Amino acid sequence: MRVVLATANAGKVVEMRRLLAAQAPYVEVLGLADVQAYEPGPETGATFAANALAKALEAVEATGLPAVADDSGLTVDALNGMPGVLSARWAGRHGDDRANLELVLGQLADVPDERRGAGFVCAAAYALPDGRSEVVHGEVRGTLLRAPRGTGGFGYDPIFLPEGMALTSAELSPHDKDRISHRGQALRLLVPRLVDVLRA
Amino acid sequence: MRVVLATANAGKVVEMRRLLAAQAPYVEVLGLADVQAYEPGPETGATFAANALAKALEAVEATGLPAVADDSGLTVDALNGMPGVLSARWAGRHGDDRANLELVLGQLADVPDERRGAGFVCAAAYALPDGRSEVVHGEVRGTLLRAPRGTGGFGYDPIFLPEGMALTSAELSPHDKDRISHRGQALRLLVPRLVDVLRA
Repeated sequence: MRVVLATANAGKVVEMRRLLAAQAPYVEVLGLADVQAYEPGPETGATFAANALAKALEAVEATGLPAVADDSGLTVDALNGMPGVLSARWAGRHGDDRANLELVLGQLADVPDERRGAGFVCAAAYALPDGRSEVVHGEVRGTLLRAPRGTGGFGYDPIFLPEGMALTSAELSPHDKDRISHRGQALRLLVPRLVDVLRA
Repeated sequence: MRVVLATANAGKVVEMRRLLAAQAPYVEVLGLADVQAYEPGPETGATFAANALAKALEAVEATGLPAVADDSGLTVDALNGMPGVLSARWAGRHGDDRANLELVLGQLADVPDERRGAGFVCAAAYALPDGRSEVVHGEVRGTLLRAPRGTGGFGYDPIFLPEGMALTSAELSPHDKDRISHRGQALRLLVPRLVDVLRA
């Protein structure tokens, strides 16, 4: 059973391969590099769910294989839920993790501790060549620090302290991060559903 | 009758002096440079109203004179209403108009035309030495262009096309801008109230 992982984000590929392998070791996970290459379109959706589904559908169309995609990001209370769907291009160009993180810290420099709540949200979708698709969500709440801590993970992980934890998402072990993370939650919901429909 | 204008923003001083002069020419408007200097604190409020009132109260405390202040900003639909109260420090440091504007353009690069709605919102407040105060609001709706146009105004004016207008806020004459602008609306509400309480 072969499934395409429709993401070009190296950090996500590592996490999603790990999460899929834990859930369904008999599924062969192909990265975009393993399949006939295509140029993913821009992400123009207003919601995580719309973007995740669009990415999965695009991969199915390009490869003819079942596809899994996610769209996820940081939702900052003091930014009215942004960067949200713009998390990857918050600093104005796509994929500069460090610039995005530094920008959020700068924007929140005068925001007091009691208003530094945030969440990581993930929408995960599968799509099949026969047209079926599904989207699920995962979320982890936490607070934003004033300086980065830790070298693991990617994106905004170094400034995100998950609720009830003493370590940032970038300080947690991959196993501990997957256990609580938004993407871990979403993929643990999605993968059994995908396996069910693929087997049916 | 002397009133302190509690803003260090040069663009705002020009606009607010002009708007106050049009409304109440017998009021002597003092800038922060004209009064005993004080260091305005950081703006930490979650709303325009809270910040405007805090600035006015701070000026009254420092000078013993009636004070007028505003807090205003750009609310972008596709950014869930942000930059909002963070408009002046959107790019991470305070007061870099060009960087702030370029950042919004970059963040919205993939946002289609039909989701580029925005508003300029102004909360204007007065505060008196006897403790009385009031806050009013003005708003102008419009859409965001993909490149700046015009050299007038300040802040995000060059990318803001007010509803029903063919010119950006930076292309309008000062007179035309004042007539429709968020700050013009708010000060036309506020100044008669302030004059009434000062005369009572």
